[in-house]
Amino acid sequence: MISVAIVDAQTPGNVGTIARAMKNFGLTDLKLVDPPELDPEGEAYGFAGQAREDILPNADEVTFDHLVENYHTVACTATTNEDARKHVRYPFSTPAELAADLERIETDTVVVFGRERVGLTNDELARMDEICSIPASADYPVLNLGQAATIVLYELRSLTVADTQHPDAIERADEQAIEGLYDQFDDFLDAIGHPEEKHDKANRLFRRVLGRAHPTGREVRTLRGLVRKAAMHSRD
Amino acid sequence: MISVAIVDAQTPGNVGTIARAMKNFGLTDLKLVDPPELDPEGEAYGFAGQAREDILPNADEVTFDHLVENYHTVACTATTNEDARKHVRYPFSTPAELAADLERIETDTVVVFGRERVGLTNDELARMDEICSIPASADYPVLNLGQAATIVLYELRSLTVADTQHPDAIERADEQAIEGLYDQFDDFLDAIGHPEEKHDKANRLFRRVLGRAHPTGREVRTLRGLVRKAAMHSRD
Repeated sequence: MISVAIVDAQTPGNVGTIARAMKNFGLTDLKLVDPPELDPEGEAYGFAGQAREDILPNADEVTFDHLVENYHTVACTATTNEDARKHVRYPFSTPAELAADLERIETDTVVVFGRERVGLTNDELARMDEICSIPASADYPVLNLGQAATIVLYELRSLTVADTQHPDAIERADEQAIEGLYDQFDDFLDAIGHPEEKHDKANRLFRRVLGRAHPTGREVRTLRGLVRKAAMHSRD
Repeated sequence: MISVAIVDAQTPGNVGTIARAMKNFGLTDLKLVDPPELDPEGEAYGFAGQAREDILPNADEVTFDHLVENYHTVACTATTNEDARKHVRYPFSTPAELAADLERIETDTVVVFGRERVGLTNDELARMDEICSIPASADYPVLNLGQAATIVLYELRSLTVADTQHPDAIERADEQAIEGLYDQFDDFLDAIGHPEEKHDKANRLFRRVLGRAHPTGREVRTLRGLVRKAAMHSRD
């Protein structure tokens, strides 16, 4: 089970943004430490999308100690130490590495995000178990709180999303249908009088373009119809 | 070169959020089709972080036709067709697949995000070259515009971020130092009178814990000091 905690957020809108990302990526349990007031008519609910119906009203207000005592705590921060001289922010994992690691482990984990601008303090970080940091441009690595949380929760989706809105795989046309299209293309070259000695080259080019594109059944049926008609009209 | 376009955004704050994500992930070129007014004192600039200094004031207002005619256009949408019966939203790539694909190709690509709520229209999608869709919970796959763009730009970072704020690799203690710690741990077991026949098991356990943790040089030095002192005091 993965929970999300926000420590000392100042802006209700960011709490709403994080609640929405939780709902988008299959998480439900939100813990708030020293939260701002969350007015049902205000920005938190305005930014929460459908999470305004469940995650936001069901969020628990807890203490920082509660998180440390009851969860495997992962602290998210943009700013890491560059080397091993200090332990507060080093070593760290990226969100993708965190996801791969947590997939192997059965644990109650809470991913903790800090206040706007200054994030989590060194004292808070020192009490947490792991550090997670989003790789970003060295020129400007500090993400907005809501945007940072969105990326971390997106990366954790393999642990939290049972079914996405996507099909399992893209449907590719069956091989006979595609080969049939290549045959019809060759016939079309005949029909338009493309020189015999150039057929192989043109056929190969067409095969490569289609081969890279992984056409669907529908696409191949439509293309076959068009190529057939083109050959027919060219022979008229 | 990868550019970002926002079509017919209603909320200046979302434009600012996307500009900030661009700066976080090393992109610079923002195109706006039918943008809302971007007041330098308003939400767009308020949400843009340091992108208020360059990306936002340098954004170009362009037409939709300009995008179609000058770029390889990638349309981002939450809602995909589930199968191949219609071509407007199918097949599609995920942002990670898009990044892997674009890494191989030299192209001027623009990643296009649509208006809030309804996104890009089917007529707009039909004119674009590729569809990209973020995998999310089937129960609520529709992300906020700014959050969706943040994830897509994060996934494209391998193409756009030259240097991140992170070191290339986490520094691991050298092997002799770690083996020295294991020797000292065995000496510590002696010192506290741990039964001789149980040494192997305890040593193995300690080696496994440390082995999984990939300790830094600093961590190993500190642990060696502590274990050495514990052995010393135990012998007193």
